[in-house]
Amino acid sequence: MCGIVGVIGRGPVNQLLYDSLLLLQHRGQDAAGIATSNGNHFNMYKAHGLVRDVFRTRNMRSLPGTSGIGQVRYPTAGSSDSVEEAQPFYVNAPFGITFAHNGNLTNWRSLRESLFNVDRRHINTNSDSEVLLNVLAHELQTAANGVSLDEGAIFRAVKAVNQRVKGAYAVISQISGYGLLAFRDPHGIRPLCLGRFDTPQGPEWMVASESVALEGSGFVFVRDILPGEAIFISLDGKVSSELCTVGAIHAPCIFEYVYFARPDSVLEGVSVYGARLRMGEYLADKLARTLRLGDIDVVMPIPDSSRPAAMQLAARLNLNYREGLIKNRYVGRTFIMPGQSVRKKSVRQKLNTIGLEFKGKNVLLVDDSIVRGTTSREIVDMARAAGANKVYMASAAPPVRYQNVYGIDMPTQKELIATGRDNDQIAEIIGADALVYQDIDAMERSITDLNPALKQFDTSCFTGEYVTGDITPAYLEQLGESRKHSQDESGGLLFNMGYAAEDE
Amino acid sequence: MCGIVGVIGRGPVNQLLYDSLLLLQHRGQDAAGIATSNGNHFNMYKAHGLVRDVFRTRNMRSLPGTSGIGQVRYPTAGSSDSVEEAQPFYVNAPFGITFAHNGNLTNWRSLRESLFNVDRRHINTNSDSEVLLNVLAHELQTAANGVSLDEGAIFRAVKAVNQRVKGAYAVISQISGYGLLAFRDPHGIRPLCLGRFDTPQGPEWMVASESVALEGSGFVFVRDILPGEAIFISLDGKVSSELCTVGAIHAPCIFEYVYFARPDSVLEGVSVYGARLRMGEYLADKLARTLRLGDIDVVMPIPDSSRPAAMQLAARLNLNYREGLIKNRYVGRTFIMPGQSVRKKSVRQKLNTIGLEFKGKNVLLVDDSIVRGTTSREIVDMARAAGANKVYMASAAPPVRYQNVYGIDMPTQKELIATGRDNDQIAEIIGADALVYQDIDAMERSITDLNPALKQFDTSCFTGEYVTGDITPAYLEQLGESRKHSQDESGGLLFNMGYAAEDE
Amino acid sequence: MCGIVGVIGRGPVNQLLYDSLLLLQHRGQDAAGIATSNGNHFNMYKAHGLVRDVFRTRNMRSLPGTSGIGQVRYPTAGSSDSVEEAQPFYVNAPFGITFAHNGNLTNWRSLRESLFNVDRRHINTNSDSEVLLNVLAHELQTAANGVSLDEGAIFRAVKAVNQRVKGAYAVISQISGYGLLAFRDPHGIRPLCLGRFDTPQGPEWMVASESVALEGSGFVFVRDILPGEAIFISLDGKVSSELCTVGAIHAPCIFEYVYFARPDSVLEGVSVYGARLRMGEYLADKLARTLRLGDIDVVMPIPDSSRPAAMQLAARLNLNYREGLIKNRYVGRTFIMPGQSVRKKSVRQKLNTIGLEFKGKNVLLVDDSIVRGTTSREIVDMARAAGANKVYMASAAPPVRYQNVYGIDMPTQKELIATGRDNDQIAEIIGADALVYQDIDAMERSITDLNPALKQFDTSCFTGEYVTGDITPAYLEQLGESRKHSQDESGGLLFNMGYAAEDE
Amino acid sequence: MCGIVGVIGRGPVNQLLYDSLLLLQHRGQDAAGIATSNGNHFNMYKAHGLVRDVFRTRNMRSLPGTSGIGQVRYPTAGSSDSVEEAQPFYVNAPFGITFAHNGNLTNWRSLRESLFNVDRRHINTNSDSEVLLNVLAHELQTAANGVSLDEGAIFRAVKAVNQRVKGAYAVISQISGYGLLAFRDPHGIRPLCLGRFDTPQGPEWMVASESVALEGSGFVFVRDILPGEAIFISLDGKVSSELCTVGAIHAPCIFEYVYFARPDSVLEGVSVYGARLRMGEYLADKLARTLRLGDIDVVMPIPDSSRPAAMQLAARLNLNYREGLIKNRYVGRTFIMPGQSVRKKSVRQKLNTIGLEFKGKNVLLVDDSIVRGTTSREIVDMARAAGANKVYMASAAPPVRYQNVYGIDMPTQKELIATGRDNDQIAEIIGADALVYQDIDAMERSITDLNPALKQFDTSCFTGEYVTGDITPAYLEQLGESRKHSQDESGGLLFNMGYAAEDE
Repeated sequence: MCGIVGVIGRGPVNQLLYDSLLLLQHRGQDAAGIATSNGNHFNMYKAHGLVRDVFRTRNMRSLPGTSGIGQVRYPTAGSSDSVEEAQPFYVNAPFGITFAHNGNLTNWRSLRESLFNVDRRHINTNSDSEVLLNVLAHELQTAANGVSLDEGAIFRAVKAVNQRVKGAYAVISQISGYGLLAFRDPHGIRPLCLGRFDTPQGPEWMVASESVALEGSGFVFVRDILPGEAIFISLDGKVSSELCTVGAIHAPCIFEYVYFARPDSVLEGVSVYGARLRMGEYLADKLARTLRLGDIDVVMPIPDSSRPAAMQLAARLNLNYREGLIKNRYVGRTFIMPGQSVRKKSVRQKLNTIGLEFKGKNVLLVDDSIVRGTTSREIVDMARAAGANKVYMASAAPPVRYQNVYGIDMPTQKELIATGRDNDQIAEIIGADALVYQDIDAMERSITDLNPALKQFDTSCFTGEYVTGDITPAYLEQLGESRKHSQDESGGLLFNMGYAAEDE
Repeated sequence: MCGIVGVIGRGPVNQLLYDSLLLLQHRGQDAAGIATSNGNHFNMYKAHGLVRDVFRTRNMRSLPGTSGIGQVRYPTAGSSDSVEEAQPFYVNAPFGITFAHNGNLTNWRSLRESLFNVDRRHINTNSDSEVLLNVLAHELQTAANGVSLDEGAIFRAVKAVNQRVKGAYAVISQISGYGLLAFRDPHGIRPLCLGRFDTPQGPEWMVASESVALEGSGFVFVRDILPGEAIFISLDGKVSSELCTVGAIHAPCIFEYVYFARPDSVLEGVSVYGARLRMGEYLADKLARTLRLGDIDVVMPIPDSSRPAAMQLAARLNLNYREGLIKNRYVGRTFIMPGQSVRKKSVRQKLNTIGLEFKGKNVLLVDDSIVRGTTSREIVDMARAAGANKVYMASAAPPVRYQNVYGIDMPTQKELIATGRDNDQIAEIIGADALVYQDIDAMERSITDLNPALKQFDTSCFTGEYVTGDITPAYLEQLGESRKHSQDESGGLLFNMGYAAEDE
Repeated sequence: MCGIVGVIGRGPVNQLLYDSLLLLQHRGQDAAGIATSNGNHFNMYKAHGLVRDVFRTRNMRSLPGTSGIGQVRYPTAGSSDSVEEAQPFYVNAPFGITFAHNGNLTNWRSLRESLFNVDRRHINTNSDSEVLLNVLAHELQTAANGVSLDEGAIFRAVKAVNQRVKGAYAVISQISGYGLLAFRDPHGIRPLCLGRFDTPQGPEWMVASESVALEGSGFVFVRDILPGEAIFISLDGKVSSELCTVGAIHAPCIFEYVYFARPDSVLEGVSVYGARLRMGEYLADKLARTLRLGDIDVVMPIPDSSRPAAMQLAARLNLNYREGLIKNRYVGRTFIMPGQSVRKKSVRQKLNTIGLEFKGKNVLLVDDSIVRGTTSREIVDMARAAGANKVYMASAAPPVRYQNVYGIDMPTQKELIATGRDNDQIAEIIGADALVYQDIDAMERSITDLNPALKQFDTSCFTGEYVTGDITPAYLEQLGESRKHSQDESGGLLFNMGYAAEDE
Repeated sequence: MCGIVGVIGRGPVNQLLYDSLLLLQHRGQDAAGIATSNGNHFNMYKAHGLVRDVFRTRNMRSLPGTSGIGQVRYPTAGSSDSVEEAQPFYVNAPFGITFAHNGNLTNWRSLRESLFNVDRRHINTNSDSEVLLNVLAHELQTAANGVSLDEGAIFRAVKAVNQRVKGAYAVISQISGYGLLAFRDPHGIRPLCLGRFDTPQGPEWMVASESVALEGSGFVFVRDILPGEAIFISLDGKVSSELCTVGAIHAPCIFEYVYFARPDSVLEGVSVYGARLRMGEYLADKLARTLRLGDIDVVMPIPDSSRPAAMQLAARLNLNYREGLIKNRYVGRTFIMPGQSVRKKSVRQKLNTIGLEFKGKNVLLVDDSIVRGTTSREIVDMARAAGANKVYMASAAPPVRYQNVYGIDMPTQKELIATGRDNDQIAEIIGADALVYQDIDAMERSITDLNPALKQFDTSCFTGEYVTGDITPAYLEQLGESRKHSQDESGGLLFNMGYAAEDE
């Protein structure tokens, strides 16, 4: 997953982009980059690491300009560790274009071949984003052929892109000498929104993955970019837009609400925090139907992202809510001495129990979702070691049974604990006395209750139904093989515990 | 503040020290260091930054040895930014000694003079810890003069140290060829505890600032080091101890419970988490006496350290508990572009509000303590901007009115919002509709309820009574002047919001 | 000035390129870069500094591939310090092209405009090399339009480049999926030669600025690339070539022989060392005509590049040859403490005198050329301070009176000591008892004696006649203004003493 | 080998120390360090690498103070690569002492034991210099016991040091609050000299390994420190001195003249350059006696250090002198790609032949000395490959047959080509048609001719007679075993070709 931002400003934008990327850091901690435009000159800096580690004073000084884009990257399936694949990307012909992308293309391999064979454009990485940039570059060249590059030509190019490309993509791009172009795939799988800040010199505009990046930087949220829509903002701040696809189903990724987006963001008119509270309510109702509640002494979240659901669940069921698991904020990608006999590195380093909250109690643990299940099992063990009597587990999301192909890094299907197992089998593996999953329907209603205009979501990792319609079993198999470190225990751990989003 | 740890092991201890320092990272994020002992050779590495950033594979490889010590440092009053002042420290005569210290000496200036003039020892930094090490070195040389260095001589040296030195000090030190020496000041102001891990080759011993460092590393908590006690562990694992001062009042720093220590630590037999719950209860009772509670729609913690108190308070008063303030984990010491017109950097970057939790509600915000008050004021503003109706503020600790001289970095007296102001005046400045502080007595009872054997604390920043008896107004004035960046807004922000302990 | 190299190999070429760049390091110490081609993937690494400092093991590991190019850069007029302007350069459309250039275009500003306005290619630096690459890219795209890219199309493209471009350029370039293209400007101002190494798998080919790079890497010199010729080597080692310009005068830069090239290189069939010996002979003859030789006790070179000329001069005149000036190899771009009262930093740090070689003697100092004259003056002073009686100076090159526009960084005209001054005036300024310059005719004969086929040279800095025919006084004036640090004393020092070529 | 320098100045000395270390860089390229004294505070910075790479602006800024010392290190026998062993060293008791040493102690192992057992001082490295510092520290403590530290006490301490310590040592040290102490071992094996610079505020004093460091920094050479003498310079510039040993034979290391010192230095009243000229003369005379000279077409030095000897030899024999071997200044410790099939890395990368100087000629090559012989053999091969007819080799020094124990890193005895072989056998191994070595007597006369007061030298590597009288076969054997990388071909190469002294 990635976070992207772009600004057309009235003064230097480097600090603004930096601040916005900090607010989007939960969407990607692997690499960060900024490209500004200063007259006809692009300035770019990108590197591995967190925003605060990547950009030093000298880097920031090297980024003058009154417009620019930025990205934070979380590596997606098949991506390499190379800083070469950090974004923004740049091509110099035609016009000079810088480019940042959130999402994942599903037909990038065939696109790469046609780019090379037909369009004679060289793709130097395995990044689907570089492919997308070159499709855009080619279509801009074609659209502008013999005519000047105006909004009409730009929107024609985006239409052509939408016809060639399959998958999830929210894009922010600068065209040298013209302005900032942002567009979103026809299904609107990845989020993108527009904000405005008025200055005495006129309005500044920001486009970003989440509303929190706008608001945290002082911008006012204007609206979401629509599915299939392109927005072009000229260097002097004129905004134009056009729907560049018609008829596609609007199906935003439901995982943004479950886990990925910040709770203080509003996506498609729905507060993420509000949706999580609602998931807690629906989960409470299911628990009431399926579990003997009188048994439960205390409800506990597995910090941090399940907190709203757990809290609301406890309130609705009138159960005690306590935080008996303490997170160590400083344990991230920490050092392990090679070649020493390893003392067991358990979840214990990242989470610790408060004994008095567990001792002799029946505990209901609430997580946002369960992916591999390895972390769940370890936390159940820790709860028992801390003296818990019975340990129940509830998941605010339904069982995860399929891979995500739209930009969220997830284990292969066979690594998912819920694949091919029923509720009791999963409960047994993680060692819980009982396990309750949210229903798919209830998860969807948690969101649509707050915005009835939303009718559909990409829920593929729960249902196996992929909205772009081009995902075959063969595709998934190939994806599984190319996935790096797929057996890496800690990878799953990171994901499952929410460290991807909130820790390092 | 600092965190310290020492190990006498049966195999390599570098990973163990590293892991323990991670667990103590909340006690200091400024610098980190490890010194191991490998035969007669000391290996040391220390640098500015977080543990995970300081130690790379090559550094860890350079730290062989089966015993060692480590420190994480939070700069104390008057200290410099120099890596030279990072710990551990080392002197080569007598014996070869490495040394880590948590606390602050109050008579280090006069000690430094006598060291130079009488003992002819050169102190190359402005660190009180280097002074303490040299006092120890000198007394060890004296105690061993003409006789071999045995436990008796070592404890004689510590007794002499306790007579010369005033202030707070928990110390862990290695004497080359002999073993590990740990001792605590006569009042036991700073915590220190002993743990044990049994291996087939015999027991391993760990001494650390907090029990969480022992337990997170798989060690079993044995006991606290007593005030005025010294413990010596020989290289082959034999433990001996002696009380090196008698008659001093046991007065641990109460701020450890209020704010500094991890909630999952147990200090002096008292669970920090438990004490914070109890503070919530006492605060609830005071609120019930002083505030019209029917008015309050929701109780919210200011994350993270006030969570237990706020939660228990809400439960006791049967009020709704909600988390409407979201913390951005990635905003730490972030970049500010020099020389640009600064957009207002408010608390907003570090905290964000969830609108639906504030809109039209009467909100009670709970913080662990209020120091400068600048953060409190900004949060109250944010709550109102988010639509809150009435905004009440409660502090789990009493008003902070005096400086800390025992190792906690705190603003000068005139910067403290509570200095010279009554409750209403403070409430007005921070903009709250009402403000309730914990009573001193209740704060103390929150802890003594859980261990009645504890009779007294260092509560100097609340009462102005300093347990070491040597703190004069002139001393405090000098301290204020030497304090670096004392006007730095962000410094206070960091402290007040708990970022020192839990964020970066 | 720069050094460039390219290889089509049968195994990994990174080490080979590295070794070759080391052998060309005298042509540029400012930055170094390598781009290899590995299947359809380019790998590139470039940075400021010397080859040995730029490439670490990890960088070399990141450069797999069996073909590649490299460059060492000496900043030319107007260039920036930016690593962005280090070479090789890369464009991805058409085909994917990497590119290294030695020389300087004289019409790059107008080219840049037409690239932007007509060809819609974005140039992101102020480097004339990026302009040249984009002209090449555009012409390749045009030449290949609708047909496949074969040798014919490639040579058509180079012909078009030669028509659009003015100035000096030796170029080595990789076209992804095709092979290596090298070409030289119509006048052959900058050198370029071809070498071969036979392996069991077939021949490997290397193209490089100087023969020493071929031979030092074990390759056999095959021939110089001809002026206006292009050579294309396919990935499987097939070599084809074509003259892409006809009728231009062959006029290699004479400064390569005077000073720039390594003495052990052979350029245009002429040993540089041999030419320098010959310059010594002609200079000896002129001295015999103009100076009372009986007066001279000892002949001394100003190390290092004037050694052959000085030695041969002494032998021909039967005078004693001695080395009384010792060079400090370690003084390069060394630190000067800002803001301190500077002790005089004279040439003395870089050169030192051996007193007994000077004391009471009449000394003839021989330099390869005199540019600003500041160094000459300081050396004359040093000679007198060391006790010399009379101090004569001889220059193996004629007076430098005009700027170089073909890639050699030189002071502006007004900074040149010989501009507007006659021999006696110059001698007076540098403090020599007599000064003898080589005649232009003799300098040329020193080279043509060894290869009579050579008829003409670019001798513009001595004569003011520029072979490309497009250099106007206005051009030179603009050049002077854009020259960076043109008043920087040390810059001139570096150049004048030969440090650019042989020191750091 | 190492170079050391110390200054008592009247203003900041960091730049001065830096400049002086640059002038001593030929004595050690492995590490560099500076320690200044600023009031009662020492500032120190040291790291691996060349002076110009070690000290950046921030490091220099961290070195305020008006007195200080510096060192450049060439690793001696048994030393580690650790930066921990870079100098200066520091101990804080007594007084605070910083310390730099050139030489090697032969009894440091037994000293280390007595320091530990008797003096209770911990030595944390394997550096003999740390031992020497602690002996000095202990003796200063003893000498000052009960009395104040004045010149008398200091010189008493040095006398005691001279009694305990064996080997070669030139030392420069700062005693905090007192001044700068320099002393030289009783035999004066390593050089040390004193210089003076007069300022309006009074004289500044510099002590350095070679006179070139004084003169290059603008100081006037005053005199050599005498063997066994100590000089103390108080912080206010008062100089006192005393002979702290009597009766020892003055025996400076002859290798300083042969190879190690810079030619522009004067040691013990003898110009190094002059001595090398003289070696050329004696070698010429021996050649005249032993070789048919009419046969020789040309004399060539192996650059750089044999140049004076070769030039004078050619002049005396009236033979042609030419430089047919060109050195590549940029090839130092260059990268070799691990795990690739290595193309032969010959001397060819560091040296190249000028074909026309060899083709068909009988060549006499002159080197300063021959150690392992591997380089000699490769150069002879290169000469033949370049077309030489006969190849003769002459060495300005006698056969090297024994190890050096006084600070020069040399292969073990069995690696020395001359060990156990006669002249013809050596000539056969290196492939020369004839080989002529200097006689020991002539080598000594080359120096004593210029200063008849010198009677004796340490010539141990030629004769096996060690002036300190404590070197046994067992000692040498142990030394051989502890020598690191003793089989490393490139190590020998570096040494033999003079790269240690003049290249990187």
